[in-house]
Amino acid sequence: MQSYIPPIDDYRFLLEEVLDFDGAMTELGKDVDCGLATAVLEEAGKFCADHLHPLNRQGDEQGARLVDGSVVMPDGFAAAYQAFVEAGWPSLAADPDHGGQGLPFILQLWLDEMLSASNLSFGLFPGLTRGAMEAIAAHASDDLKTRYLAPLISGEWTGAMALTESGAGTDLALLKTKAEDLGDGRFAITGQKIFISSGDHDMASNIVHLVLARLPDAPAGVKGISLFLVPKMLPDDTRNTMSVGALEKKMGIHAQPTCVMNYDGATGWLVGEPHRGLAAMFTMMNAERLMVGIQGLGIAGAAYQQAAAYAKDRLQGRSSDGGRGPVAIIEHADVRRMLLKVRAFVEAGRALAGWTALQWDRAQGHADPAIRADADALVALLTPVVKAAFTDFGFESAVAAQQVFGGHGYIREWGMEQFVRDARIAQIYEGTNGIQAMDLVGRKLPMAGGTVVERLFDQIEMDLQKCEGVEMAERVRNALGLLRDATIALRGAGADAAGAAAVDYLRLFALVCLGWMWARMAAVATRDSPLHASKRALAEFFVLRLLPESEGLARAIGAGEASLMAMPGDAF
Amino acid sequence: MQSYIPPIDDYRFLLEEVLDFDGAMTELGKDVDCGLATAVLEEAGKFCADHLHPLNRQGDEQGARLVDGSVVMPDGFAAAYQAFVEAGWPSLAADPDHGGQGLPFILQLWLDEMLSASNLSFGLFPGLTRGAMEAIAAHASDDLKTRYLAPLISGEWTGAMALTESGAGTDLALLKTKAEDLGDGRFAITGQKIFISSGDHDMASNIVHLVLARLPDAPAGVKGISLFLVPKMLPDDTRNTMSVGALEKKMGIHAQPTCVMNYDGATGWLVGEPHRGLAAMFTMMNAERLMVGIQGLGIAGAAYQQAAAYAKDRLQGRSSDGGRGPVAIIEHADVRRMLLKVRAFVEAGRALAGWTALQWDRAQGHADPAIRADADALVALLTPVVKAAFTDFGFESAVAAQQVFGGHGYIREWGMEQFVRDARIAQIYEGTNGIQAMDLVGRKLPMAGGTVVERLFDQIEMDLQKCEGVEMAERVRNALGLLRDATIALRGAGADAAGAAAVDYLRLFALVCLGWMWARMAAVATRDSPLHASKRALAEFFVLRLLPESEGLARAIGAGEASLMAMPGDAF
Repeated sequence: MQSYIPPIDDYRFLLEEVLDFDGAMTELGKDVDCGLATAVLEEAGKFCADHLHPLNRQGDEQGARLVDGSVVMPDGFAAAYQAFVEAGWPSLAADPDHGGQGLPFILQLWLDEMLSASNLSFGLFPGLTRGAMEAIAAHASDDLKTRYLAPLISGEWTGAMALTESGAGTDLALLKTKAEDLGDGRFAITGQKIFISSGDHDMASNIVHLVLARLPDAPAGVKGISLFLVPKMLPDDTRNTMSVGALEKKMGIHAQPTCVMNYDGATGWLVGEPHRGLAAMFTMMNAERLMVGIQGLGIAGAAYQQAAAYAKDRLQGRSSDGGRGPVAIIEHADVRRMLLKVRAFVEAGRALAGWTALQWDRAQGHADPAIRADADALVALLTPVVKAAFTDFGFESAVAAQQVFGGHGYIREWGMEQFVRDARIAQIYEGTNGIQAMDLVGRKLPMAGGTVVERLFDQIEMDLQKCEGVEMAERVRNALGLLRDATIALRGAGADAAGAAAVDYLRLFALVCLGWMWARMAAVATRDSPLHASKRALAEFFVLRLLPESEGLARAIGAGEASLMAMPGDAF
Repeated sequence: MQSYIPPIDDYRFLLEEVLDFDGAMTELGKDVDCGLATAVLEEAGKFCADHLHPLNRQGDEQGARLVDGSVVMPDGFAAAYQAFVEAGWPSLAADPDHGGQGLPFILQLWLDEMLSASNLSFGLFPGLTRGAMEAIAAHASDDLKTRYLAPLISGEWTGAMALTESGAGTDLALLKTKAEDLGDGRFAITGQKIFISSGDHDMASNIVHLVLARLPDAPAGVKGISLFLVPKMLPDDTRNTMSVGALEKKMGIHAQPTCVMNYDGATGWLVGEPHRGLAAMFTMMNAERLMVGIQGLGIAGAAYQQAAAYAKDRLQGRSSDGGRGPVAIIEHADVRRMLLKVRAFVEAGRALAGWTALQWDRAQGHADPAIRADADALVALLTPVVKAAFTDFGFESAVAAQQVFGGHGYIREWGMEQFVRDARIAQIYEGTNGIQAMDLVGRKLPMAGGTVVERLFDQIEMDLQKCEGVEMAERVRNALGLLRDATIALRGAGADAAGAAAVDYLRLFALVCLGWMWARMAAVATRDSPLHASKRALAEFFVLRLLPESEGLARAIGAGEASLMAMPGDAF
């Protein structure tokens, strides 16, 4: 396997030429410019390439193991995590009031891309820690903040989210874990949770679990769920009464310890109000969901690099005029099609992630509350799109990159099949992609009476009007037209109609957003440089060869729910 | 994991009501009718469900192992193979002159479906044996036929195809294995082959390898390749000088021993003419390619059964009117969408496989040579479509069925992720799906001046005209129109244009063929029975929700090759 090459030139292109990063930072009063941002990304990339990428295959082969009730990580992971913490990467974008570096979120998301590209199992540790940190920062008491925020932000401790139970996955109303008020501010938590990523490991001195549970007087359903902070090590340095029941054997992310956790009257503290755990949980979830989308992007980019290198090296077949042979398979049109498909997603996805991250920074830190609210709504709208579409495209990309290798792609030692197995989880966890699509259609489209989505469409339309490459922008505008029509048709749709359309609608939405980014990139890529030339070529490939999928999607959405609901349940 | 339920009712429906099996058998003078055929399929299904399905997970966990240079199969496989041979399944459709039962090929293909559904790794053994048997029957000397056909047909011995080398996969012109004429009818074969399925195992007393190699006086390129029969055990019962260099560690099909084989002056016999090995190889390949397509179908059907059972059992969320909850997730529109997508492929794929198999029987056994030739051409045309589209849809189906399980789908013990890992190989081996697409566009469309494909399209058109469900047939006819236009546009296309269009074109071709089968099935499914009602519902779902993909495919094909070839190779 080749080294991992961090996409620094592409980040620089996006910051300087597409996203007006300097302007955005000035607007936010942040003392960061393109130069500093690129330097940070360069260092981060070096860390991922040097420390994490070399452990990725070995982590898959060894896996996390359960030894005498504790998780032992694969060789090298603890040292790499130590180095990660010492270099300060966990605190990159965190609140300076609690020891964070306060850098813009775009750097965090792109760091996440490189973490996912080089070692997804590893990248989940800081990712989940950040989710825990966000929930504590937003909802916990000052006392809990004082005790827990600093070591989570520094990475000295890590976080875990304990939501799912065997009978309660998507539907948290069904969860059974109990919390008993001990009267002194502490609660005793009892129950079993499954699928707990980073639930236990040997890389940090404490693990802070955020656990959903029910208080005795809780109303039924999701309105009776509370969130508790349950640390592995208690403040008096004794071990909490929680244990790893089992490690799940999974398709991929073998170096990530996915635990069955037993809480046996474990000591916990309430985070936020009683029975309001879901709100706190969504604070974690939303940050996580963007990150999970980025995981799809990261793996796609890493798989592309390997496949492109292989395609330039592997000799098979003759040139298209029959004159030369054997030639590198990069000369064959169908190999190019596979590689271009991956890259056209990766580079537009990177741009869209960056655009969304800048909205996130506006939502957090803009002086004008109206701008904050607008930006926050856009992030909420785009979160399910990024989560689901990026992980779907990410998985499809990993499969396409594997296909470039022919039979070798199926053999473990080449590493391509690991990308496929690892990428697959991102379509499932943090809310399956079907759930994301229903979140988009059922919750996000109706936001503010439908004006949020209209505002995004208007912005896309405006940007397209400004684009130079006329024919290309025109095609994206056509797809936007299909999306607008579908959006109007889904207004006020019932649950069946929404559910029947949701996944196709989200994909159409994503294709339009990627087309929008390609139009913006092509419009500024006018120079005679290799990077600009490749941007123009990829933009053309995207609109001519990938965007047409939007037509079939629009047609399928328009066909409605009748053909899905006709068959009786027992006929399946 | 639930038991495997062989789709006997669906086979019966296809034989009796859709494919006019009795008529076809009368036409061929074969003494088989629907009753006998269904009884055979029922027995075969019972064997797969009782003997093979229960070994599938265990085969994945244990895997085939290399012990002291020999392959040891997972527990239970040798006994199951013994039972398979004793029941006579290997000889089902083989030539009665050599001990075969001479049953029609449609029964073989559907047996292959059930083998793949219950245990893909196991199913490859008889599959490869059949390929070897076909090549020997068509090309070998009478002496070789006498010695090798009977034990291969009975399954007492198994077969293996040794084509690929590390530098020569798709491009066999590059292969280096040497054959030296020993002067007494024997040849000494020397070289290393990789990716040799069923290359060694402990389930049969001999393994017959068909090995591609070059004679000393061979011309360069594919015109200098000869085929040799190289048995593990020589006629004098001594061990041939061939050995297993390694077992490949793969993404899936762990119970299938994929060997690196070393031939160290191994004794072999020429099959067919010197330097004409490729023709003999394609005899094997073509039979194998249809079977590989069926593998995708089999896994999709098996994955569907598990996912449908889970969806009827798993309680999450509320009914669409909000009134009841938790409800079985089969009530949710998006879960139905995933399941219907799989089933709409499986049932139409099963029909198309059956239709193709009947053409195969006509090609082999019809009294009229013109009808034989026509049928043979149709099989040649459809072979790459079945191989590539069925394995692509099969993989996508396994992924969709896994998604129905949410997080549980990612956990090994549920078995859904094995379907995904196993299904993936079928898109790669026996010629990658990209190669199939280029075979379709480059070799099959031009057959007989383009009249073969025109004849198929005309038959589809005629069948659609006869269909009752007017709107449905009309939509398939529209898609056929797009396919006809694309076919005309590709006439005389150069290598780049053909390669750029090929994969999308093959998918469009397959969608039209599946739509054709749905129209035919819907037209006869007029009764008020559960099976007929489900056929009508699935046909409607297919044309309304899946067939629209054809529009985007046609548009992408029409965009041509320029956007794929523009980027310089070193810019990838």
